[in-house]
Amino acid sequence: MYRINPHYAKLTGSYLFSTVAQKQHAFQDAHPEVEVIRLSIGDVTQPLAPAVIAALHEGVDEMSRAETFKGYAPDLGYAFLRETIVEHDYKARGCHVEADEVFVSDGAKCDCGNIQELFVPESRIAVCDPVYPVYVDSNVMAGRTGVCDPKTGRYEGVIYMPCTRENGFKPEFPKETPDLIYLCFPNNPIGGVLTKEELQGWVDYALRVGAIILYDSAYEAFIGEEGIPHSIYECEGARGCAIEFRSFSKTAGFTGLRLGYTVIPKDLKELHDMWARRHGTKYNGAPYIVQKAGAAVYTPEGQRQIFETIGYYKRNAQVILDGVRAAGYYAVGGTNSPYVWYAVPEGMTSWGYFDYLLEKAGVVCTPGSGFGPSGEGYVRLTAFGDYQKTVEAVERIRRLGA
Amino acid sequence: MYRINPHYAKLTGSYLFSTVAQKQHAFQDAHPEVEVIRLSIGDVTQPLAPAVIAALHEGVDEMSRAETFKGYAPDLGYAFLRETIVEHDYKARGCHVEADEVFVSDGAKCDCGNIQELFVPESRIAVCDPVYPVYVDSNVMAGRTGVCDPKTGRYEGVIYMPCTRENGFKPEFPKETPDLIYLCFPNNPIGGVLTKEELQGWVDYALRVGAIILYDSAYEAFIGEEGIPHSIYECEGARGCAIEFRSFSKTAGFTGLRLGYTVIPKDLKELHDMWARRHGTKYNGAPYIVQKAGAAVYTPEGQRQIFETIGYYKRNAQVILDGVRAAGYYAVGGTNSPYVWYAVPEGMTSWGYFDYLLEKAGVVCTPGSGFGPSGEGYVRLTAFGDYQKTVEAVERIRRLGA
Repeated sequence: MYRINPHYAKLTGSYLFSTVAQKQHAFQDAHPEVEVIRLSIGDVTQPLAPAVIAALHEGVDEMSRAETFKGYAPDLGYAFLRETIVEHDYKARGCHVEADEVFVSDGAKCDCGNIQELFVPESRIAVCDPVYPVYVDSNVMAGRTGVCDPKTGRYEGVIYMPCTRENGFKPEFPKETPDLIYLCFPNNPIGGVLTKEELQGWVDYALRVGAIILYDSAYEAFIGEEGIPHSIYECEGARGCAIEFRSFSKTAGFTGLRLGYTVIPKDLKELHDMWARRHGTKYNGAPYIVQKAGAAVYTPEGQRQIFETIGYYKRNAQVILDGVRAAGYYAVGGTNSPYVWYAVPEGMTSWGYFDYLLEKAGVVCTPGSGFGPSGEGYVRLTAFGDYQKTVEAVERIRRLGA
Repeated sequence: MYRINPHYAKLTGSYLFSTVAQKQHAFQDAHPEVEVIRLSIGDVTQPLAPAVIAALHEGVDEMSRAETFKGYAPDLGYAFLRETIVEHDYKARGCHVEADEVFVSDGAKCDCGNIQELFVPESRIAVCDPVYPVYVDSNVMAGRTGVCDPKTGRYEGVIYMPCTRENGFKPEFPKETPDLIYLCFPNNPIGGVLTKEELQGWVDYALRVGAIILYDSAYEAFIGEEGIPHSIYECEGARGCAIEFRSFSKTAGFTGLRLGYTVIPKDLKELHDMWARRHGTKYNGAPYIVQKAGAAVYTPEGQRQIFETIGYYKRNAQVILDGVRAAGYYAVGGTNSPYVWYAVPEGMTSWGYFDYLLEKAGVVCTPGSGFGPSGEGYVRLTAFGDYQKTVEAVERIRRLGA
């Protein structure tokens, strides 16, 4: 008699953004007259760059002729893309990463979710709190945690590193020693960053305790300030302890196109080879046309065009940050990040304020508590919306008052 | 101190098709003058159907304008595609499958590889021998097997169902009771099929012993004979015991585009909901343009065009089957399948013949032993090549003699 994996039942509720979407749709159905503005999920809204569109059309044309048709992609990605990535994202920043250390995939979410398979079930994971839910949920599903305590909102066995107003929203080295440390900077959902010195501290810590850092750098393109590392490989020793995830989703608007990559240095030879084996066995490559589109992002026109769009979103972030502060809220993020994180009015919960904001202002946010217990009392707004709608949403939030 | 998943080390060698490709490249590098013909991996060679190309271009254009741009796809696939699938692949065959039981993904390989996560580690799996390597390998990686016995080529703990000349290449109910039964028909690599009565026998068996059938129907479009089920849901009771995997790869040449789907009936409510949760947490949807291309496959022109291409490949299959038989080999498959399976000359191993065929004829086959111990002494040829090259390859095989 078959038996199901019992760990899925430990997951509290559905995936955060599925719940947010359900609530939004229920509200919209009940109030068809309201123009609901979504500043919730970090989904982009601006069209793909012309250079990307041209590459896609060209790729599609290649698929229409037997001479240029492409079947299965190489397991780990086309060499043209892996080499371009190394050149632009690493060599240009003085980082040592080689093309055969880059594993192209259909997105950082999948890679972040799957990476835990390479480690033993007993691995202790450490996560920032609040944090992107995939890190914890994928480990819950794999049985690497106990149940979630309904009082604290914490899964047994997980090492939480609270990021709160008190500590400047930056994680501190945990008291218990972790085996795997998930770090995401610029941070989702708070929008904070680490300086190079701070990140070097984490690399040194990981090397000291024998932990692997799983570094999610999906938002690096939003970094505006100097001295903020775009890659963990800017830090000394990182090749011996860090795996990095990168995404084209936020950088180049590929959320609906699906492209990302993971770097596993050969200094971590076993993990490098296991990930290659996993790709070969359980994955079948990103579509050729999408990889070609990815390479177009790195052309001079592609770079100019995507930075124009990133500039558009960064202007939104500034509007949101200024707006919620002007409304009287305590807010952070938005500077090196597309996310603004602000404290809900005294006495309200994150979900309470979510409902309040949806009902009173027709604005969809993401409740901070959905990212972890220390997110309670906060919500996240994203800058990925349309500019006019973002301005309108912020105006509605201001009218509501803090 | 982090520790790696020890089960990956149990895998024998690299993924089968990676090894085949390496050997082919090494030979080609050493003999640049030889025109190597690849009848190994089941990768298509004919261009995408014009209806699919048109849909892709249209989709790309939509992605170029803010009004029609699409970000994240719905977790489980766009409704337009799920509904079309139900209409054409199920309702038209009298099968009861609903749109919210269809989970769109980037391919059947990923789904076949990931599905085992829904079950306990102790699950006993039964597989045909020989079989598509993903079923076994993904369970090895998850720790559901012991080590591989180098003498028998069998992983400890796996229930092998030999498909040999003696039993007409059809699996028999195993002596030990499995929890999960992987079935793939039309079969990969042998190219055999089950009649509807035979498949009903498996459904009845699974219901009796409380097992789940994981049914890979990736090659159904190649079925030419009457009375051969295209879907397991043609069998009574299958909604209570079967999960079905389907692919656009072989049906519509999407190997390089990546699209497939998995059906989990709501009769298997827990598994249905867990798979939805898995999609939400560890996957991010197939690209919109690819889903749109998938829907175009079901238009009248799309259907006409893909069946023309399938006809092209079926002609190749016939050429191969006739050719290797004329050369004196014992061969099966090729009728309801793109694969021909034939016995290598007495005294040779599958890999020995692989090397022999590559060196003497410049033809790449897939060694039968790579699909499981009972595949020893056989090789697989695929019909997905170019027609002229297929004719040439078969001619070379005939010249070598059996």
